[in-house]
Amino acid sequence: MYKYITLLIVLFTSSFSFAQKEDSLFIRSIYDEALTNGKCYGNLEYLCKEIGARLSGSPQADLAINWGEQTLKDLNLDKVYRQEILVPVWKRGQRERANIMDSYLVGNKPMNIKALGGSIGTPPKGITAEVVVVESIQELSTRPESDFSGKIVLFNRPMDAKLIDTFSAYGGCVDQRWAGAKEAVKYGAVAVLVRSLTHNTDEHAHTGVMDYGDYGQKIPAAAVSTDDANAINQIVKKEGKCMVNLSLSCSSLPDAVSYNVIGEITGSEKPDSVIIIGGHLDSWDVGEGAHDDGAGIVHCIEAMRLIKESGYKPRFTIRCVLFMNEENGNRGGKKYAEEAAAKKEYQYFALESDRGGFSPRGFSIDATLEEDVYKIQSWSGLLSPYGLHLYKKGYAGVDIKPIKEKQDTVTMCGFIPDSQRYFDYHHSDKDVFETVNQRELELGAASIASMIYLVDKYGWESR
Amino acid sequence: MYKYITLLIVLFTSSFSFAQKEDSLFIRSIYDEALTNGKCYGNLEYLCKEIGARLSGSPQADLAINWGEQTLKDLNLDKVYRQEILVPVWKRGQRERANIMDSYLVGNKPMNIKALGGSIGTPPKGITAEVVVVESIQELSTRPESDFSGKIVLFNRPMDAKLIDTFSAYGGCVDQRWAGAKEAVKYGAVAVLVRSLTHNTDEHAHTGVMDYGDYGQKIPAAAVSTDDANAINQIVKKEGKCMVNLSLSCSSLPDAVSYNVIGEITGSEKPDSVIIIGGHLDSWDVGEGAHDDGAGIVHCIEAMRLIKESGYKPRFTIRCVLFMNEENGNRGGKKYAEEAAAKKEYQYFALESDRGGFSPRGFSIDATLEEDVYKIQSWSGLLSPYGLHLYKKGYAGVDIKPIKEKQDTVTMCGFIPDSQRYFDYHHSDKDVFETVNQRELELGAASIASMIYLVDKYGWESR
Repeated sequence: MYKYITLLIVLFTSSFSFAQKEDSLFIRSIYDEALTNGKCYGNLEYLCKEIGARLSGSPQADLAINWGEQTLKDLNLDKVYRQEILVPVWKRGQRERANIMDSYLVGNKPMNIKALGGSIGTPPKGITAEVVVVESIQELSTRPESDFSGKIVLFNRPMDAKLIDTFSAYGGCVDQRWAGAKEAVKYGAVAVLVRSLTHNTDEHAHTGVMDYGDYGQKIPAAAVSTDDANAINQIVKKEGKCMVNLSLSCSSLPDAVSYNVIGEITGSEKPDSVIIIGGHLDSWDVGEGAHDDGAGIVHCIEAMRLIKESGYKPRFTIRCVLFMNEENGNRGGKKYAEEAAAKKEYQYFALESDRGGFSPRGFSIDATLEEDVYKIQSWSGLLSPYGLHLYKKGYAGVDIKPIKEKQDTVTMCGFIPDSQRYFDYHHSDKDVFETVNQRELELGAASIASMIYLVDKYGWESR
Repeated sequence: MYKYITLLIVLFTSSFSFAQKEDSLFIRSIYDEALTNGKCYGNLEYLCKEIGARLSGSPQADLAINWGEQTLKDLNLDKVYRQEILVPVWKRGQRERANIMDSYLVGNKPMNIKALGGSIGTPPKGITAEVVVVESIQELSTRPESDFSGKIVLFNRPMDAKLIDTFSAYGGCVDQRWAGAKEAVKYGAVAVLVRSLTHNTDEHAHTGVMDYGDYGQKIPAAAVSTDDANAINQIVKKEGKCMVNLSLSCSSLPDAVSYNVIGEITGSEKPDSVIIIGGHLDSWDVGEGAHDDGAGIVHCIEAMRLIKESGYKPRFTIRCVLFMNEENGNRGGKKYAEEAAAKKEYQYFALESDRGGFSPRGFSIDATLEEDVYKIQSWSGLLSPYGLHLYKKGYAGVDIKPIKEKQDTVTMCGFIPDSQRYFDYHHSDKDVFETVNQRELELGAASIASMIYLVDKYGWESR
């Protein structure tokens, strides 16, 4: 009896060792290809330099859709197609300026601002009013309404430098940008300025989406550089009062037709069960959307190429989704999830890359069943030679979130690169191709391809 | 009896938990201070922008010594002093150019080169010769001597992009730069060009130290940009021959007096046993020596400040050494080790930061006794919240290497930041302040201070 048990153990151990060795060699070959023959850096250069910023509904977004579709077609996948959606269209407009007025300290000083996405404009002569500085939305309700009535409210809470994960620091401040206007208007404010969401103290304004909710009345909203937010704060403290003129010609237009772009390799065993890798093709209308989310787009396209070129035959259908409209509506993410649910197509796994093209650190895991988390964590040894060490439970990504809302048995991952530099560039004119390091980008694509391989080969049972 | 054992276990466990909690809070306070009130980024800006490149024996190196001494004095340490050394003096000279000549493909094309540190110059009209391309020093001995006699040898082996640790890729190629000239001269070569040690394909030449050994005859040596190395290779392949004119006016001068700069906090229990943290104050004479090794210098100064400001009273003497002349002689490192040995002063631990100011990954550990490695690894849980995950045995640093040669009971660590971008900048005009991210730099300083705290508080017994 013991003899057989021993034999079984030997057989099991040796087949496990063999699988481990085979997997480690396969993953090594994925990284080798990415690092010596990678296409993602060249793809990103094209997307950033030939197309550039690509806000939903813009001509550049259309160019990006065409480019994405052609780039996927060039991989000789089994299917490449578009998924039609309607996207909100918002235009920044030519007139976008703000000035500090009549300050003893600085005189009349132009500020660096960017209207927030979705903001209404101002009258042509702008809005001239006193600025009142607050540190939070909550502060609005603790002070007399007269403090805000007829004023421009500056939401000035800085990102917490102590948080090591900069996305946590962003999460602790983004309510000011998203909800500042719709809350301040309730107290009679005439406009809002929001301190740019960056750790840096500099002259760059960082835009982003805002929301008016259903309050009815709307006021203009703009991000202001951290330098200028600090200047206003100083003037208020030293002079007792800071007057600002804010002038914006931004506006919303009717929704437009746009597309998610999808490419897939049909699964050999379970063609109707889908593994998704995605990023978002749209960007803000400033900079070049290099890290946000050009990097994610070229990560996903490159991961498809790496899997395809490796000769590996996936069991599940591997689907790359270049989502449209993550930045100001997430219409692409919602539409994808709705159509998948309507078709009753089983969504097995989804992975998003939307945290930039930096050096890989690991994956966040969003799973309903704890055993899926453990399974993913059990593969960490295969990826540790490539610098991956984080496998923590957490949020996976905006574009894929609706998939889980429709089908909670899907397990999801967010690719986590090093986060320290991300908010230097995010949503600003600094988010350009030159800030992306080729090797860091390539390592990310290989890490994503490797995770997809492991999920396809060793993942949990379908439910 | 069991009662007492249980009580002992409870007491032990609770005191251990208490210590763990105390340590985690202390380390948290170190990172908080570095991230919210850090001085290292401002210090680096001064060192790079007000002083700049600072090759041993240059007036800028003298300015850096004065600045380092004053900056340490401003920390109110127990002692700040200099350690006199003699350093080699090498000057690049005004004349530094190379041209591809009479190529059908490119005509007469100027190349981007930098003389290697220590190289002799050429005659005023330069050296004009055919270039022969080799992939290794070994290749010299496998081909007929006539292939090299009277020729300029281009050592063209690129860094291996597949190696995840870029320092390993560097280690696999640096022999071409260090020994290329002294080997090629034996085969009759009249000069050498060395492909720049970088992963990038671009127009920047990366210099570095070379050695003539004791062969007697010397030939000039220069680094050539990867773009130009590729161009030469193409011309040789397509035209059969590539002629180059190389003209350098670099030269060596007599040794000069220079200094290591040292600041220390006297140990409360073991003042004669020393914990060293160091980087090197000299840099190459191109760029600003921002990552190499301005970052290491300001890391170490900041770690001293963080320990001092924390109020922690170290048991051992904590000594910050700003070493001179790492780049072309390591005279500072050698002198430090010699003097410590002559004084029979016990060197308990040494840590070097000389891999740039990037996001922290961990520490390499160079210990004679395995138990010290395990002890350091046992602290990893305290540093994992800050992104540190590597604690591997390996080389600690050039400056501190002589300490171990004199006293092999010293345990040493090298700080390991993410390595992907380092060789984009290394020894080139691209190694400037702007390439350093403030948070990444600050996290490094806090990581080093935390490791010093743990070694001081919980380290092994003195031997």
